Amino acid sequence: MQDWHETQIRVRYAETDKMGIVHHSNYLIWFEIGRSEFCRARGFSYKEMEERDNALMVVAEAYCRYKSPSYYEDVLTLRTKIAEIRSRSIRFTYEIYRPADQTLLAEGETLHLVTDENKKVRTLPEIYKEKLLTEVTDANAFPENEAPH
Amino acid sequence: MQDWHETQIRVRYAETDKMGIVHHSNYLIWFEIGRSEFCRARGFSYKEMEERDNALMVVAEAYCRYKSPSYYEDVLTLRTKIAEIRSRSIRFTYEIYRPADQTLLAEGETLHLVTDENKKVRTLPEIYKEKLLTEVTDANAFPENEAPH
Amino acid sequence: MQDWHETQIRVRYAETDKMGIVHHSNYLIWFEIGRSEFCRARGFSYKEMEERDNALMVVAEAYCRYKSPSYYEDVLTLRTKIAEIRSRSIRFTYEIYRPADQTLLAEGETLHLVTDENKKVRTLPEIYKEKLLTEVTDANAFPENEAPH
Amino acid sequence: MQDWHETQIRVRYAETDKMGIVHHSNYLIWFEIGRSEFCRARGFSYKEMEERDNALMVVAEAYCRYKSPSYYEDVLTLRTKIAEIRSRSIRFTYEIYRPADQTLLAEGETLHLVTDENKKVRTLPEIYKEKLLTEVTDANAFPENEAPH
Repeated sequence: MQDWHETQIRVRYAETDKMGIVHHSNYLIWFEIGRSEFCRARGFSYKEMEERDNALMVVAEAYCRYKSPSYYEDVLTLRTKIAEIRSRSIRFTYEIYRPADQTLLAEGETLHLVTDENKKVRTLPEIYKEKLLTEVTDANAFPENEAPH
Repeated sequence: MQDWHETQIRVRYAETDKMGIVHHSNYLIWFEIGRSEFCRARGFSYKEMEERDNALMVVAEAYCRYKSPSYYEDVLTLRTKIAEIRSRSIRFTYEIYRPADQTLLAEGETLHLVTDENKKVRTLPEIYKEKLLTEVTDANAFPENEAPH
Repeated sequence: MQDWHETQIRVRYAETDKMGIVHHSNYLIWFEIGRSEFCRARGFSYKEMEERDNALMVVAEAYCRYKSPSYYEDVLTLRTKIAEIRSRSIRFTYEIYRPADQTLLAEGETLHLVTDENKKVRTLPEIYKEKLLTEVTDANAFPENEAPH
Repeated sequence: MQDWHETQIRVRYAETDKMGIVHHSNYLIWFEIGRSEFCRARGFSYKEMEERDNALMVVAEAYCRYKSPSYYEDVLTLRTKIAEIRSRSIRFTYEIYRPADQTLLAEGETLHLVTDENKKVRTLPEIYKEKLLTEVTDANAFPENEAPH
């Protein structure tokens, strides 16, 4: 089983709502950051996959279970891994964790279809399949891995 | 079984992303509009339920299945109904439909816990339970029912 | 001087922040809705201008003065008009007004450059210039004028 | 004259729109991140100022000039500084810069009124005034200064 890829974010003021907590729709945006950084840690950019190789990961399903709220200025750990990879689809799972009080805030899952730019389903290019399934070590980490979000 | 409550929205430019379609996180925001309008159609405002009666519907789970993309300027029908109502939780289901080409774009579900303003689980006030379960007719529709979103 | 074009919106829960009021960034999104509806009231769709006639109104400047906060569920009137139109640029002005208590909440302005899809500045097609400067009467209003946002 | 405070962000997929560039409303959200990090670099958290000391910086005006577009995955430098500080108001200025091609993408300004939680204008507590005007050196930087956003 693949290890979690971890990346950090800090909660933005604009992400909060009148309940004083982060609005639940932002968790889907954070999952997306998790995917971007997951790709980057495996040596490629999702932008290039999309723009150069015409392979888009269109969201077909999204699920999130909210266990505990998050707040403005919280530093959170996004954990991302692949649950399943098939020739034309990829399933990611996620955890949102707050290290300060060791609390798991949310768990989620997204299913993606691989399509071309006209939203027609296509096969995931083999090179990306290999990279996505790579275990990350210091040796193959992307230099810009440490860049902020 | 309860009928769908229907309300209309028009897709905003800001809701699109670089794929040229609506970003998937917006469907959760649309579901939320569906809930607001569902309450309004049953004669009460979710704002009052929250601010006057200290009963919040915190999102505990959210799920969306995306079947077909939506685009800038699309006029969409949000369909909302209650799937289950218990003393401390409510489950809503949703459909997003585009009348212009009779396409069902998405289906979803959210589970809510009823809490007080300190996010402590509490019992749904009986008055709201009754109103939520009311079948809407012309007679009991809220006057501002027709207001825009 | 052109009259204001008016359209209605209702404040969404997701538009609020932890101050309990609408987050200020949403006013720019509302101005954009105002522009869309302004175009629609003059018989064309900004989507077609962009996709069919390759004329984009890229935002070059945006300004907003916030006079009074808006709240979840408020019904607001967006007022939009053209302040200046030149061969390659358009300046819009806006007001956000709450009819319930007759309060002017915000005033703003945006400057747009007309570009092609590669973001190269171009001349505004004459047909759009004419339509944008048209005074709207019942006779030339777009049928879908009444559609929601 | 105060130096710019600099912080880094990476453009999110969800921040783009159908033009393929970042939607202009996000720049106001980035300015807000700039303010948060500006405070943090001066040894305090805006969250504490708001929640513990009942001093809110409500946005009264916002302006942005967009000079060049930004794209998904761009790493950007947010530059923030105080233009003017008075007893009941603060004016910040901003630059958004892309180091990869040394391009200044946007310049902006926001004016804030200091209020209490009921949005009543009040005096900025002296302790915050002092901290905001402090020049930052390695000695007084906040430990969490390096945390991500």
